[in-house]
Amino acid sequence: MGRLDQKTITNKIAECLNTVRTMKPLVHNITNYVVMNSTANALLAIGAAPVMSHAESELEEMINIANALVINIGTLDDVWINSMKKAVNLAKHTNKPVVLDPVGAGATKLRTNTVIELLKKGKITVLKGNYGEISAVLGKEGKTRGVDTLEFSPTTAKKIVKKVSKKYGIISVITGPTDFISNGKVIIELNNGVSLLEKITGTGCMLASLIGAFVSVCDALYGTTAAVATMNIASEKAYEEAKLPGTFSVKLMDYLYKINEKDIKERLNIKTITG
Amino acid sequence: MGRLDQKTITNKIAECLNTVRTMKPLVHNITNYVVMNSTANALLAIGAAPVMSHAESELEEMINIANALVINIGTLDDVWINSMKKAVNLAKHTNKPVVLDPVGAGATKLRTNTVIELLKKGKITVLKGNYGEISAVLGKEGKTRGVDTLEFSPTTAKKIVKKVSKKYGIISVITGPTDFISNGKVIIELNNGVSLLEKITGTGCMLASLIGAFVSVCDALYGTTAAVATMNIASEKAYEEAKLPGTFSVKLMDYLYKINEKDIKERLNIKTITG
Amino acid sequence: MGRLDQKTITNKIAECLNTVRTMKPLVHNITNYVVMNSTANALLAIGAAPVMSHAESELEEMINIANALVINIGTLDDVWINSMKKAVNLAKHTNKPVVLDPVGAGATKLRTNTVIELLKKGKITVLKGNYGEISAVLGKEGKTRGVDTLEFSPTTAKKIVKKVSKKYGIISVITGPTDFISNGKVIIELNNGVSLLEKITGTGCMLASLIGAFVSVCDALYGTTAAVATMNIASEKAYEEAKLPGTFSVKLMDYLYKINEKDIKERLNIKTITG
Repeated sequence: MGRLDQKTITNKIAECLNTVRTMKPLVHNITNYVVMNSTANALLAIGAAPVMSHAESELEEMINIANALVINIGTLDDVWINSMKKAVNLAKHTNKPVVLDPVGAGATKLRTNTVIELLKKGKITVLKGNYGEISAVLGKEGKTRGVDTLEFSPTTAKKIVKKVSKKYGIISVITGPTDFISNGKVIIELNNGVSLLEKITGTGCMLASLIGAFVSVCDALYGTTAAVATMNIASEKAYEEAKLPGTFSVKLMDYLYKINEKDIKERLNIKTITG
Repeated sequence: MGRLDQKTITNKIAECLNTVRTMKPLVHNITNYVVMNSTANALLAIGAAPVMSHAESELEEMINIANALVINIGTLDDVWINSMKKAVNLAKHTNKPVVLDPVGAGATKLRTNTVIELLKKGKITVLKGNYGEISAVLGKEGKTRGVDTLEFSPTTAKKIVKKVSKKYGIISVITGPTDFISNGKVIIELNNGVSLLEKITGTGCMLASLIGAFVSVCDALYGTTAAVATMNIASEKAYEEAKLPGTFSVKLMDYLYKINEKDIKERLNIKTITG
Repeated sequence: MGRLDQKTITNKIAECLNTVRTMKPLVHNITNYVVMNSTANALLAIGAAPVMSHAESELEEMINIANALVINIGTLDDVWINSMKKAVNLAKHTNKPVVLDPVGAGATKLRTNTVIELLKKGKITVLKGNYGEISAVLGKEGKTRGVDTLEFSPTTAKKIVKKVSKKYGIISVITGPTDFISNGKVIIELNNGVSLLEKITGTGCMLASLIGAFVSVCDALYGTTAAVATMNIASEKAYEEAKLPGTFSVKLMDYLYKINEKDIKERLNIKTITG
């Protein structure tokens, strides 16, 4: 990737953060019980507004007033799966982006099948998960252990992220020590973030909701990249002040609120891989 | 309002905080998934005890041992609405106060209708919401955007808070930059608090549960006022130590625990408007 | 208890913490809405991995990949009770330990009966609750007030903890100012911890999940003791830095992550009572 491209991308990403702050998009979440609180707080910190709602009878009205829909299957059951399906169907009739976080796909058939069924509706904008979860979508053995992935190979991750994007016509993201983002053509590689993020529950789920906020006001590929970069750079700044998970999670929220264009430009560690 | 009145009210409010600490009321919450944890922690911090329970088959026993019932419709669905209705019916047979937090009323018909139906049972003691939510109860276009209100006018807020109180024979509260509390006759205006409260999810829900604790041991009008004042003054003290939302939310819990009669007396910014 | 025994037990306990960190057991929680987030974070902090799942159709797969099952009835209803029962039945066919946290047993018939029914399946490894909750299991008047216990007598607690263990062939734990742990033969008495733990919601629930992690990699009696000791000693270290509940809860997570063998050995205040 040429120097100019990188600068252009960096500027687009930094600009996208500002747009979120200006536009204050409303993100409708059908998410898991574990992370509802931290997800809502992350959205507020970044300058967006959260709403959590799953009752089928109010989904249409909620989706109409929201700017993005985020679906997270972390604590799914039949009632919630029905709401998720209905919500995605309703989103088909709007121009609003839908983010899907396939928590635990590969670990159980219920999770893998639900994710594939939602993807097949043809309305998902962004799919974000770890290596095992995204692999599971391809029908491979996900080998997911609970909500964590057991094995990780950058080379395979790149292939999978692109393959999944192509197959479903979506943006897909594989998070890990390096994050890979693809639209089926290019692959963007991000090398920000700290490993302590894995010692706090729901940071991946928070990221999915941030993606919802960003892609509702920016281009899907750059919006997704901007959300991942924002989360990771905020985590770096938090980690500079806190090496232990309790304090770190508090500081992470502080820096999601405080992070600005300058932080992004100074710290972004991005690489694009075409083809 | 005369100087004497103001002093009397201030003393009543400060006294009410002490009474909560002494009596340790048990507050039964049927609330939303997002705020269950922070609500329970706020009740513990203030010196009360929380219980969260929604199973219809145990509601009667729970309401019998509880000192107050708090209903919050933040993540409602049919199952939970049935529990809420049953709980309010059961509370009719006791002397225990019921607080209703109409989260998102005005945003969807399900929410607006649920709130009105619960109010019509004639057993709600206190209704607390933002401008849009309380307006929605009057059948006006609530114009609620998710859980936030879009427009706010102090003059209209005063009219609405009084009108709603009169219509249902309840205490009602409109929270905002200024908080308005009415019993249908007088209006109390409170000017404490910081705007960072809006950058943390569930501070309004925490307040509803605190109101439950306070009105279970004090007069409904002054108990409600005391709860609002306590929350807001605690937020001012927290804000003096933390300007970012993660740390602020931690300090808020610290100060709900630490706040005392002296803090209330020193900082209370109250005005009553009669008629 | 002789000096040698105490040293042996202390070593076993310290070693068990290390084993958790090395083995990183996956703990499957069917727990209450209030504590899902803090429980997941506590498990991550101690070095284990959490999964929260309640859908009946995925329970078998989850239990197969998990190392322990933890059931907590804090916000139970019929749907969740069915999941709990099914999960315990499934766990019968595995060698994996099951921990039961009988939140609010004694307060309502639904809770008391659910706990007794789950115990009668003959597959519970550890039952952990406060005085009122564990008493309720014996069919006594639990006199539980919400999720707190009203009365506490060390002498009675010792009798009850042993009786319950004997009756069901389990390890049982009564938490309180002193914690009592029994296998029906010996009683272990632990005197660590700080009372501020009671001012944060869900510390008992976090403990139940830690017990799940510990007994999945150690002997049930010593694993349980090690989990209680770890939680309490972490709370002592947190309290040295934070006397207020918001900050204390953050530091508690920090110290669950940081606590090591040396801390256990230096601070453990243990007594075994045989017979």
